[in-house]
Amino acid sequence: MAYPFFKKTTLIAASAMVAATLHAQETTTTRPNIILFMVDDMGWQDTSLPFGTEKTPLNERYHTPNMERLASQGMMFTQAYACSVSSPTRVSLMTGMNAARHRVTNWTLKKNTSTDLQSNTLEFPEWNVNGICQVAGIPHTAEVTSLTQLLKNSGYHTIHCGKAHWGAIDTPGENPLHFGFEVNIAGHAGGGLTSYLGEENYGNRTDGKPSPPQAVPGLDKYWGTQTFVTEALTQEALKALDKAKKLGQPFYLYMSHYAIHIPIDKDNRFYQKYMDAGLSEKEAAYAALIEGMDKSLGDLMNWLEQNNLDENTIVIFMSDNGGFSTDTRWRDAPLHTQNAPLRSGKGSAYEGGIREPMIVKWPGKVKAGTRCNNYLIIEDFFPTLLDMAQVKNRETLQPIDGVSFVPFLEGKSTGENTRNLYWNYPNRWGNEGPGIGSTCTIRSGDWKLVYYYETGKKELFNITNDLGETTDLSTQHTNIVKDLSYNLGEYLRSVKAQRPSFKTTGKACPWPDEI
Amino acid sequence: MAYPFFKKTTLIAASAMVAATLHAQETTTTRPNIILFMVDDMGWQDTSLPFGTEKTPLNERYHTPNMERLASQGMMFTQAYACSVSSPTRVSLMTGMNAARHRVTNWTLKKNTSTDLQSNTLEFPEWNVNGICQVAGIPHTAEVTSLTQLLKNSGYHTIHCGKAHWGAIDTPGENPLHFGFEVNIAGHAGGGLTSYLGEENYGNRTDGKPSPPQAVPGLDKYWGTQTFVTEALTQEALKALDKAKKLGQPFYLYMSHYAIHIPIDKDNRFYQKYMDAGLSEKEAAYAALIEGMDKSLGDLMNWLEQNNLDENTIVIFMSDNGGFSTDTRWRDAPLHTQNAPLRSGKGSAYEGGIREPMIVKWPGKVKAGTRCNNYLIIEDFFPTLLDMAQVKNRETLQPIDGVSFVPFLEGKSTGENTRNLYWNYPNRWGNEGPGIGSTCTIRSGDWKLVYYYETGKKELFNITNDLGETTDLSTQHTNIVKDLSYNLGEYLRSVKAQRPSFKTTGKACPWPDEI
Repeated sequence: MAYPFFKKTTLIAASAMVAATLHAQETTTTRPNIILFMVDDMGWQDTSLPFGTEKTPLNERYHTPNMERLASQGMMFTQAYACSVSSPTRVSLMTGMNAARHRVTNWTLKKNTSTDLQSNTLEFPEWNVNGICQVAGIPHTAEVTSLTQLLKNSGYHTIHCGKAHWGAIDTPGENPLHFGFEVNIAGHAGGGLTSYLGEENYGNRTDGKPSPPQAVPGLDKYWGTQTFVTEALTQEALKALDKAKKLGQPFYLYMSHYAIHIPIDKDNRFYQKYMDAGLSEKEAAYAALIEGMDKSLGDLMNWLEQNNLDENTIVIFMSDNGGFSTDTRWRDAPLHTQNAPLRSGKGSAYEGGIREPMIVKWPGKVKAGTRCNNYLIIEDFFPTLLDMAQVKNRETLQPIDGVSFVPFLEGKSTGENTRNLYWNYPNRWGNEGPGIGSTCTIRSGDWKLVYYYETGKKELFNITNDLGETTDLSTQHTNIVKDLSYNLGEYLRSVKAQRPSFKTTGKACPWPDEI
Repeated sequence: MAYPFFKKTTLIAASAMVAATLHAQETTTTRPNIILFMVDDMGWQDTSLPFGTEKTPLNERYHTPNMERLASQGMMFTQAYACSVSSPTRVSLMTGMNAARHRVTNWTLKKNTSTDLQSNTLEFPEWNVNGICQVAGIPHTAEVTSLTQLLKNSGYHTIHCGKAHWGAIDTPGENPLHFGFEVNIAGHAGGGLTSYLGEENYGNRTDGKPSPPQAVPGLDKYWGTQTFVTEALTQEALKALDKAKKLGQPFYLYMSHYAIHIPIDKDNRFYQKYMDAGLSEKEAAYAALIEGMDKSLGDLMNWLEQNNLDENTIVIFMSDNGGFSTDTRWRDAPLHTQNAPLRSGKGSAYEGGIREPMIVKWPGKVKAGTRCNNYLIIEDFFPTLLDMAQVKNRETLQPIDGVSFVPFLEGKSTGENTRNLYWNYPNRWGNEGPGIGSTCTIRSGDWKLVYYYETGKKELFNITNDLGETTDLSTQHTNIVKDLSYNLGEYLRSVKAQRPSFKTTGKACPWPDEI
């Protein structure tokens, strides 16, 4: 029944603890806000803004006034690369790793289930079919520290809006909030969407039966209205920005549209205009989908201006792979021409599958109305955004392959491309077409080598002279083929890349420098 | 126009990076799931489970069969303390800091706005009216690393359900997702609720005008139904658990009921039963509110059993402050008796304001059907839960005042209370009653000293002999008063606690050992 107040140990400990700092590592006052505006399946030509040297017929067809507006205030990148399908690109963005290393080489959806189309000849490797994860011990995932987690840790308010597609259903990575996002609007495991239409509840069932896995979640309040999903996401994003403005932190908005992925539903705000211009129903719907997306960009830019935040906000425009060009259900024939002058489209190792429309506006840093012809690749966004956000603590579970392109933004580039870029796709997508297959690829200066695992075929293109990859120069430049094959093989092995094997023999397909 | 494949620098760098580990620090296989079942404003006697030495009339009145069930499987704590109002308690839980240190000493709601009731005589200090924040630079907040963030970082799947109340509206802390929660069901800045009733949309307006700040968010799908909010939260929590079970991570569910906070709406699932038992409408509604909360506990326990997770899940039951006892609008007269045999209730420094019903079930660790009479305080939950979760990396921005009570759970206690507990409330709540005022308090062994900043009055109680704090022994034991005052003063200064000042002179009120 004593009272222990003569015991001073707790007091001493308490006093010592007072010395511990209560201040976080970073200050928040001067760091810029960042909006990464990511479009799904948008090709290099799906815009009125010419990323090539001249205005093409497709540039004439489409209307993207807000992309033009953004470009006039920032820098266009004419050779910005992603992977040829969604999940690899989005994982590289989120992790800074090349797809060959993170092994989320094809698109993800269901737990422990590969989306690879079966092949008669090839056995595909056990890639990370469950995507990425921020914790250890989840099978078939890459364990990573995400870009958003680092931004959040450093003091950014982090908003996810739209498509996530980082982890399979029923794995931790399905939920964007697992990756350091503090707001999640409509993001989940799905990489596509069942419907764009509010009238169709964005694909959600209301009869008590389970909705399909790609029904868009979280937009219930728009169900039964005529609100196209692009507009619903934009309105929700603007609300999140209104809130973000009040919080006293810099914000990161990952504005990740479901547009312009199939199904090419009609965005009736713009559809008739393209019908009137003489397009087919399918192509008018596609053009309307693009302009609806562009309106969203404009709405965000307007919000920044109205809130006097445009001077301290970086806006980055990007797409995750090439334009869809493989099915007459959604696009008019002839197929594989929808990204012309680039060859082929989504799913292909050719430029049509991997070259993206990219713009960066960064007031005070990036000279307005400029173009950069240096190439870069999606994993470069990771160190670049951390540079932009002045993040000091960058400790990650994974090694970082990406290289910051801030020097390009600052106009410090020599204009020469002196680095190798790599792709690895040891899988099989669901569609067929030129350059679509189980491939690995290297870009080195002007040259690009595509290697087909199944056949051992190698194609060599001079991208600078032959943007459309019409002329395979592999027989003319055997020494270049040999050297690029060597570098590609060495790189893939160094990052423990995966490759298919032959069903008949069970043996692994040769690396490009083994054949 | 060269190609740079003879440059091997990137290859070397890539090879070196392969050595970097891809494994997170913690493994997830054996760590227990944790459910912290936190009730709002629930008094020590608001249950059929006797936390005192005998069954009281209140214990006879209320029906909480699932608390009895939990207690039969775990350990009851008879002297578990919290703060006398919500935000200080919840911040201490989330940060491990004593309220004197974190300075969120009163309840929070609106940004930069104190909820202190004005006083004619006292000027209240500039406490952290915006609550806590995980980032630097937000005014009037304590910058902290949260319990949930550490759990999340270590690999837990973290679910928030119900009341949050960690940060003011329009500050980062209003959003539970800022603190490492990966799911947020209905949590926001509000510490109370406008309505429990689905028929009233939980207080949300549907006419386009802004909803009141304490309308419950995120439960839109139950609007217009007869679903009491307690039930809606439970159903959503069960859905989140169904999902958590699939993720392959241990989970932490913070099941934080809005019940049994005012307004005492009628939970019609149980109301008539208490009317039939002869209670008044008000008291029948209060009892029904309690039993509805208890049913939720039972539903969660059932889920654990049905999913064979009860053996590897810790369930902790706790309340955030004493039972509401200060307004005949909600409780029958006589006031301040609603927590009898404890004196006073919510808002008071007396036991009725701070002693809580607490139970811990931990299969394999805690002996079933046991009681622990050692005292503990809410900030102790922080290190305890991290111990339970085997979290290794505990780096925090803030010093930790709490002490793990795992030794109590393991039955390693000597039974003696040899530590000092501290409270500081340099504020003014919205209601009046015994022990309600601007006070600081120390508990040391059997003794408890309450000091009133405004009057300099000191009260000394022997809690072991006089649970109801009926007899002030301060004049009989002046030496104990002196020593406790000294320890209390030393402690408060050591943690840079705040105190009110006198309006007439502008001078700070004396510390308890200065008078």
